[in-house]
Amino acid sequence: MKVAVVGASGYTGLELLRILLRHPELEIAAVTSEQRAGQLVGEAFPALRGHLDLAFEPADAAAIAGRVQLAFTALPHAASAPSVRTLRDAGVSVVDLSADFRLHDLATYERWYGPHAAPELVGRAVYGLPELHRDALRGATLVAAAGCYPTSALLPLVPLLRAGLVEPTGLHVDSKSGVSGAGRKLEAGYLFAELDGNCHAYKPGYAHRHAPEIEQEAALAAAGEVRLSFVPHLLPTTRGIATSVYARPRGEVSGALAREALGDAYAGERFVRVLPEGETPSLQAVRGSNCCDVTVVVDERNETVILLSALDNLVKGASGQAVQCANLMCGLPEETGLLEAPLLP
Amino acid sequence: MKVAVVGASGYTGLELLRILLRHPELEIAAVTSEQRAGQLVGEAFPALRGHLDLAFEPADAAAIAGRVQLAFTALPHAASAPSVRTLRDAGVSVVDLSADFRLHDLATYERWYGPHAAPELVGRAVYGLPELHRDALRGATLVAAAGCYPTSALLPLVPLLRAGLVEPTGLHVDSKSGVSGAGRKLEAGYLFAELDGNCHAYKPGYAHRHAPEIEQEAALAAAGEVRLSFVPHLLPTTRGIATSVYARPRGEVSGALAREALGDAYAGERFVRVLPEGETPSLQAVRGSNCCDVTVVVDERNETVILLSALDNLVKGASGQAVQCANLMCGLPEETGLLEAPLLP
Amino acid sequence: MKVAVVGASGYTGLELLRILLRHPELEIAAVTSEQRAGQLVGEAFPALRGHLDLAFEPADAAAIAGRVQLAFTALPHAASAPSVRTLRDAGVSVVDLSADFRLHDLATYERWYGPHAAPELVGRAVYGLPELHRDALRGATLVAAAGCYPTSALLPLVPLLRAGLVEPTGLHVDSKSGVSGAGRKLEAGYLFAELDGNCHAYKPGYAHRHAPEIEQEAALAAAGEVRLSFVPHLLPTTRGIATSVYARPRGEVSGALAREALGDAYAGERFVRVLPEGETPSLQAVRGSNCCDVTVVVDERNETVILLSALDNLVKGASGQAVQCANLMCGLPEETGLLEAPLLP
Amino acid sequence: MKVAVVGASGYTGLELLRILLRHPELEIAAVTSEQRAGQLVGEAFPALRGHLDLAFEPADAAAIAGRVQLAFTALPHAASAPSVRTLRDAGVSVVDLSADFRLHDLATYERWYGPHAAPELVGRAVYGLPELHRDALRGATLVAAAGCYPTSALLPLVPLLRAGLVEPTGLHVDSKSGVSGAGRKLEAGYLFAELDGNCHAYKPGYAHRHAPEIEQEAALAAAGEVRLSFVPHLLPTTRGIATSVYARPRGEVSGALAREALGDAYAGERFVRVLPEGETPSLQAVRGSNCCDVTVVVDERNETVILLSALDNLVKGASGQAVQCANLMCGLPEETGLLEAPLLP
Repeated sequence: MKVAVVGASGYTGLELLRILLRHPELEIAAVTSEQRAGQLVGEAFPALRGHLDLAFEPADAAAIAGRVQLAFTALPHAASAPSVRTLRDAGVSVVDLSADFRLHDLATYERWYGPHAAPELVGRAVYGLPELHRDALRGATLVAAAGCYPTSALLPLVPLLRAGLVEPTGLHVDSKSGVSGAGRKLEAGYLFAELDGNCHAYKPGYAHRHAPEIEQEAALAAAGEVRLSFVPHLLPTTRGIATSVYARPRGEVSGALAREALGDAYAGERFVRVLPEGETPSLQAVRGSNCCDVTVVVDERNETVILLSALDNLVKGASGQAVQCANLMCGLPEETGLLEAPLLP
Repeated sequence: MKVAVVGASGYTGLELLRILLRHPELEIAAVTSEQRAGQLVGEAFPALRGHLDLAFEPADAAAIAGRVQLAFTALPHAASAPSVRTLRDAGVSVVDLSADFRLHDLATYERWYGPHAAPELVGRAVYGLPELHRDALRGATLVAAAGCYPTSALLPLVPLLRAGLVEPTGLHVDSKSGVSGAGRKLEAGYLFAELDGNCHAYKPGYAHRHAPEIEQEAALAAAGEVRLSFVPHLLPTTRGIATSVYARPRGEVSGALAREALGDAYAGERFVRVLPEGETPSLQAVRGSNCCDVTVVVDERNETVILLSALDNLVKGASGQAVQCANLMCGLPEETGLLEAPLLP
Repeated sequence: MKVAVVGASGYTGLELLRILLRHPELEIAAVTSEQRAGQLVGEAFPALRGHLDLAFEPADAAAIAGRVQLAFTALPHAASAPSVRTLRDAGVSVVDLSADFRLHDLATYERWYGPHAAPELVGRAVYGLPELHRDALRGATLVAAAGCYPTSALLPLVPLLRAGLVEPTGLHVDSKSGVSGAGRKLEAGYLFAELDGNCHAYKPGYAHRHAPEIEQEAALAAAGEVRLSFVPHLLPTTRGIATSVYARPRGEVSGALAREALGDAYAGERFVRVLPEGETPSLQAVRGSNCCDVTVVVDERNETVILLSALDNLVKGASGQAVQCANLMCGLPEETGLLEAPLLP
Repeated sequence: MKVAVVGASGYTGLELLRILLRHPELEIAAVTSEQRAGQLVGEAFPALRGHLDLAFEPADAAAIAGRVQLAFTALPHAASAPSVRTLRDAGVSVVDLSADFRLHDLATYERWYGPHAAPELVGRAVYGLPELHRDALRGATLVAAAGCYPTSALLPLVPLLRAGLVEPTGLHVDSKSGVSGAGRKLEAGYLFAELDGNCHAYKPGYAHRHAPEIEQEAALAAAGEVRLSFVPHLLPTTRGIATSVYARPRGEVSGALAREALGDAYAGERFVRVLPEGETPSLQAVRGSNCCDVTVVVDERNETVILLSALDNLVKGASGQAVQCANLMCGLPEETGLLEAPLLP
């Protein structure tokens, strides 16, 4: 099956190429980039020389629509919506990696992101987190791949909300992210000399755009309103997100009960690993892989349930997840092309 | 005034040397190290060649007691207590950087650390966090310099507890620490290849020895019991601790009110900087300096008060703080030798 | 075909597992580790949980000889030779990743490494650098995979020596290596806090064990004696070696001529990429991949030919190269299992 | 004595502030920055909050000329020359940290940097490397502080050239630099995600602007023409330069003889440390300090003299050196304000 990567020169786009290059069923037939249009992939990114013999095209959705059955759109939010519309109008299935179709409520979208360029499609995309929405993803034609922070918070949290083991309000989400999550953004704050040895919170409270996204999906799991505070941090590393979620138990919740809820939820999952008691998730253990490691610890003394997770923001937090969704959309085994072991060390 | 650094070859010991070398009133008269005994400081640590013309002595407290008026003991916990007793018996003032005298309750100490080697001194040391215990530190002869994590949590938290603005239970402390906090420990987990690009929580819940220390001092501020969960993380960086504290407001607490409480508490302080609204603490801004940066954000929607801090674990979290305490003990201006600007970038 | 990884818990052993897990023709049938014997791979290394369902066995070559046709031995030098002998005696083909069989001259080996435990096999192994010894590797039963530094120096240098374009003496090799090259060695110098932000040369001159290995293979290319000075450095990174080789031109050598020699040598190669003029090799472009990037610059003004290379020391410098050799030994297409694109960024 | 820092918001400018803040004789009376004009230093750079109570002024040399006796100009090359002229015309002594006055030959300057804005001053500045030009610096009024790479190459090389122990041609200089050497440049190549775990050469051969600067000063030492090839590399670290210089011995040169030449040259120096045999310079040992560590190894077998050095590019490679020069210009003890021990670890 031929696929396109629209916006292939950003970090998530490049990661899509890396994954698709080893995918036995999906063939990269087109790659687009405004900035790199006309350049061979291997010229623009010497790392890929010899791996992919294609040139970047301008990001013209219409021009590629006829040549592929599925497209990954890895464009900035707002820029993505028009391309998605064009592709869908031409009958191309789309996995969108931007935020444009993750929020189901248009008003919420516009409060956080500004005017939407394809409002008629809002609410029609399936939220692309296979462990939560597998059935809906099978055969879907428009998928909004889940955000990186939301994936890291939802995977540990949703089973406990579903099981009614934690209160849906007063949640505290403390995330630590590698820098690649920001893309190849030319701002002083992302320079090596500014981040080396550094770590800082940003947009603490309820100010980061991923907060309403987490709440939307958590509310589905809780079948009711969810309230959380979110404090993302930047880490002096390139890849990975480690997240802690602090919740209040609903009634008496032992560590065993909480671990059972997590374990049951992910018993058959290939990409969510519930760690044995005593282990904690680490970025190293998931680097370059599509796995998200999770665990839960209950501090009964302080009536707190602590959920911990780790994933690679470019894989399970973006491009790996997008391919996992595409596999489901296309009726392929979900893990196709995604079983790569982590880069260790 | 002549001082000794007992246990001068560990990371906090070396940092003491770096600070004391520029201190105009305290003169390093003796440095001890079991492992390095007999070696010149500059031979053992080429970085210090030309800076300090002394040889390491064996860690024999008695042997140095007669030559100094004050000693910094930077030994592992349990190893520290006997040296401290010997030094105190000889009339030497002591700033102890270990955990041996931080907990005022012997039973609590022994539950977390095992048998105490100088139980008669427990409860007699002043807790060495000058912003909280300045008066008691003036003229004190035995000081237990506060731990690195506790300093990072207490400096933002205590003013809000004292002002009665946050509940003393259900507190969540999420800390991220540079690796030097573990000292020069030869374990696989501290190897470069294991930590590069990595980040992971350890001892989550109420399992890290600094948790009861934070609770002890927070309880003094709250004038009542405090309950917190504590999740420390290791960062891929050498120096620095960034801490988030999540608390529930007591009644209605606006951001302005919370910021005022912090601002009032540290109005005249030289080493605690309350950041203006919109800024967040960063490790870079305090690297190598004795400052702790703090701020507070209130998420009224989710009834959460978020406190953020950053400090250099080897300076304000250990050796700088110890010198700040020593200055108070000796009647010197508190900031003497500690005004070094951060290393930027 | 069933294979064993003997010494699978070190960094090169783990990297072999990562590569072999995606190899379609070689199946991991046994993994050994003295230290981890009895543990499941996924327990010992949580990163591999779910990827490989085997337990580590004691490093008993005899016990695994009957179950595999080929073994990779990734043991420390000296420890490797006896295992290799046992495996070969049992008819198992061996790719040895240690230094035990790289030097063809026993006296040279013993000068640098001490007594050899299987001297009768010295000189009988093929030097495992496929771009130099492809024909000999086809069908070989004992291969000594080339060292990481030697690979990085030889790949750019050999074509110029073969072409007679540079003098074989007065060579200067300046290498910069990631820390994983040292393995999981518990020495203070490999701790994160010691290497973060650091870089230093070690064993400069003709003191590192890889120097005679480079000379041996370079001498074959030059058909005569070669003399080089070698200065390896440690970089604050985990993976990768960047090498500069400085040589004197033999007669007049233009940049074009030198580039042509490199280009011709590697025209059909899949894993050596000769960069276009104006580009320089970078560790990022080869991270996690089996490629070695090379280039040459001629400073005619100063009569110097400068060769530059970059590779991932754990892949093309060790485990990827070993698999490339195994493919040749087994009659498989040389690139089988090795076409993974680099991890970018 | 009142001084100004013109261009105080770049990395070398900020480092000047850090050093001058602890300097007992030089008082910062003015700081300029085009971009930050009007902002308080502590607002623009939170790290400096509480350390310096000044606002940035526009970079108007005339406006500050009347208020200071000495100015450090830390502007980009070409931008610096006009400011220097204005300051000198007003009788202000100047230490220029740009490249504008380092090359004594106007034609050479213009070949590498383009048109010069104050050609009448070219050749009138003293080259600011105190260990080489101490006498000329005493009382000088215009000093061009030496470049970072040149300092790292010249300090080890000059004594051997002066002693006639190495050939002045066929020199190979291989340098590895932290990223701060490039300043706060907003280019993709300096982003954290591009440099983390990376290392690469750039401008290899005779293409970097520091190459003619090294040759100029080396030629003075050799009393004749010098030819070198120069290969700078970027390291995944913020501060520091490690340099290897490969030279051919002139006649028979033993290690002892070479070490003696280095040792004699720097016997009385406070900021150049000749390491004992067996040690190699490391970035860690000089981080944040004004020291340059040097050593020499002779590989007699390959007729090569290997010189190694390490310095902090922002201190001895820029701002510390500038203050060292200023001390000499002002008749102060040369080490004033510069004895800070390295940040370890």
